[in-house]
Amino acid sequence: MGRVDVELAPPYAVHVEPGVLSRVAGAIPPGGRCALLSDERVAPLHARRLTGLERIPRLLIPPGEASKCFARLEEVLDFLAASGLDRGSSLVVLGGGVPGDLGGLAASLYMRGIALVQCPTTLLAQVDASVGGKTAVNLQAGKNLAGTFHQPVAVFADTDVLSTLDEADWRSGLGEVLKTALIEGEELLHLVEQLVEPILARDPADLAEVVERCVRAKARVVASDPEERGPRRALNLGHTFAHAIERVAGFGAIAHGAAVAAGVSLALAASRELGLLREPSLPERAADLAGRLGLPTSLSDLRRESGQPLAAADLIEAMRLDKKGRESRTLLVLPRCAGELELEVEPDGEILVSLLA
Amino acid sequence: MGRVDVELAPPYAVHVEPGVLSRVAGAIPPGGRCALLSDERVAPLHARRLTGLERIPRLLIPPGEASKCFARLEEVLDFLAASGLDRGSSLVVLGGGVPGDLGGLAASLYMRGIALVQCPTTLLAQVDASVGGKTAVNLQAGKNLAGTFHQPVAVFADTDVLSTLDEADWRSGLGEVLKTALIEGEELLHLVEQLVEPILARDPADLAEVVERCVRAKARVVASDPEERGPRRALNLGHTFAHAIERVAGFGAIAHGAAVAAGVSLALAASRELGLLREPSLPERAADLAGRLGLPTSLSDLRRESGQPLAAADLIEAMRLDKKGRESRTLLVLPRCAGELELEVEPDGEILVSLLA
Repeated sequence: MGRVDVELAPPYAVHVEPGVLSRVAGAIPPGGRCALLSDERVAPLHARRLTGLERIPRLLIPPGEASKCFARLEEVLDFLAASGLDRGSSLVVLGGGVPGDLGGLAASLYMRGIALVQCPTTLLAQVDASVGGKTAVNLQAGKNLAGTFHQPVAVFADTDVLSTLDEADWRSGLGEVLKTALIEGEELLHLVEQLVEPILARDPADLAEVVERCVRAKARVVASDPEERGPRRALNLGHTFAHAIERVAGFGAIAHGAAVAAGVSLALAASRELGLLREPSLPERAADLAGRLGLPTSLSDLRRESGQPLAAADLIEAMRLDKKGRESRTLLVLPRCAGELELEVEPDGEILVSLLA
Repeated sequence: MGRVDVELAPPYAVHVEPGVLSRVAGAIPPGGRCALLSDERVAPLHARRLTGLERIPRLLIPPGEASKCFARLEEVLDFLAASGLDRGSSLVVLGGGVPGDLGGLAASLYMRGIALVQCPTTLLAQVDASVGGKTAVNLQAGKNLAGTFHQPVAVFADTDVLSTLDEADWRSGLGEVLKTALIEGEELLHLVEQLVEPILARDPADLAEVVERCVRAKARVVASDPEERGPRRALNLGHTFAHAIERVAGFGAIAHGAAVAAGVSLALAASRELGLLREPSLPERAADLAGRLGLPTSLSDLRRESGQPLAAADLIEAMRLDKKGRESRTLLVLPRCAGELELEVEPDGEILVSLLA
């Protein structure tokens, strides 16, 4: 309980528990140097939870996506050198996806790779980014275009810290929970349905159960496909639509999780439309769960809530472009039932028009 | 003949031959996009040799170590994106160690790793950098402090291009040839002794034989230790001394290969001094070969030739610091005979004083 073993090479453990940040120091090899990367919002709130690591050198970056750039990456690497880290040292990263992606990349590059301990502090990072070893910074041409695969030596997901998340970050995490439940199958979907109230109350113990189950689900998918060549595509459920929605709205205008929830509802509708759906009640069930979690239940729901028109023609145009803005095939991940997905469905334009109307 | 298979995961081939650049296009997957990185000195001289790749997008960086920086790395990555490269694309790098290290790093980061084809154009890069997959840029704190291991899909070492190397680059390569021969053993050492005149005449066919044998030697060491945890230390023969010499002289003041040659002579002297040497004639034999290759035969020879005092106290101080300028143990790689080395000898101060006097 509270521990998920990720079977990658080398394997590592994700520790999920309220209060688990107090145990991070135990993951640092005795005598090894270490340093802390966090951001200016998270560190004042939570760095004190890292018992025994109060005095290690620390670098705090500005919160937000703009920190995922090369100038900041070089700053982190200069900081690691100035802190005297060598090949046997460790970098501890405390924060959401931005410090996680940036710090992970810095750890993978410094002296061609040092140990990385991830302490994700958002629900999204705990559920999604803590497994898989993806690191990245952004290029002008697009998000996450430069990065590595660098697995951490350990991950500590402390659900106590989720109480301080703002609404947008919180919803982003819930969207991924919904998506993960649909990918994983009936058991996790049912669990989330049962726990909606304590989840919304951000109860650390119940959140730990949900996070742990989501991490286990993702770990299973990733272990089968460490470098994203096939089965891992399942994790993109709802994301082709979500990326188009975020692009059309302008990045940051709509919480990622809200876009994902709308994307999941569109994927379910597409699945029904194409005759792939084997569980006829699943779209309504997912919409009901999304609604209870405070997420949009459909694209029209998201349009109402956000005040954004999100015109069908714009969304279709955005879906035709890849993340570098080039023409590419639109491939959807579509659920047949909870726990079973089609990974590469290419819809025709007519279906997209009717879905996005 | 002309091909060395490097048994890493995944394995790849190093093609060594006069004129082999005309075959690079054959290593690009059909239909895959590719782009060329080179420098402003090499491309005008040799890019035309890349038959069939005349029209691919190219980026030329300024020659010299200053290009191994983050700003340049980002420029290369932006160029890859602007050239429309995707995960199935390839980057061809034509040049010496600087484009090789920088381009290798860019290829390993772009979309978390694309195919890399290395076309080393210096003797040093052909002998040394074409095997092992090390990529890097420099940090303020030191050289090569940020990088990855990213193996190329193929390497093409064309000895025709070595005729245009300037004297410093040429000597740097010869120093590594000398070092590699001592690491590899009697057969390669003897071959180099036999081929001194054609080597100095830069005869492409004889150079190809020497380069191929050196690549084979390095490939064997690297395959036994891909991430440099043990046996690969052998490749540092002469380099602890050489780095100290280059640091004391000021980087760039003494050709790397000249420093390596002096370092090799010092390692042989240390080995004799410490009673490790089993082949009593080896120091004189190595000095003789160094002299015939136009390299320094000893530290005092290098002092005379360079006009640099290279004071013992300064060298000892420099050896006590690692590449980030911190205190560290001085560990030497010392030859017992051609082909057999002690990998971790910690000399006492007295011996260093007498060696460097």
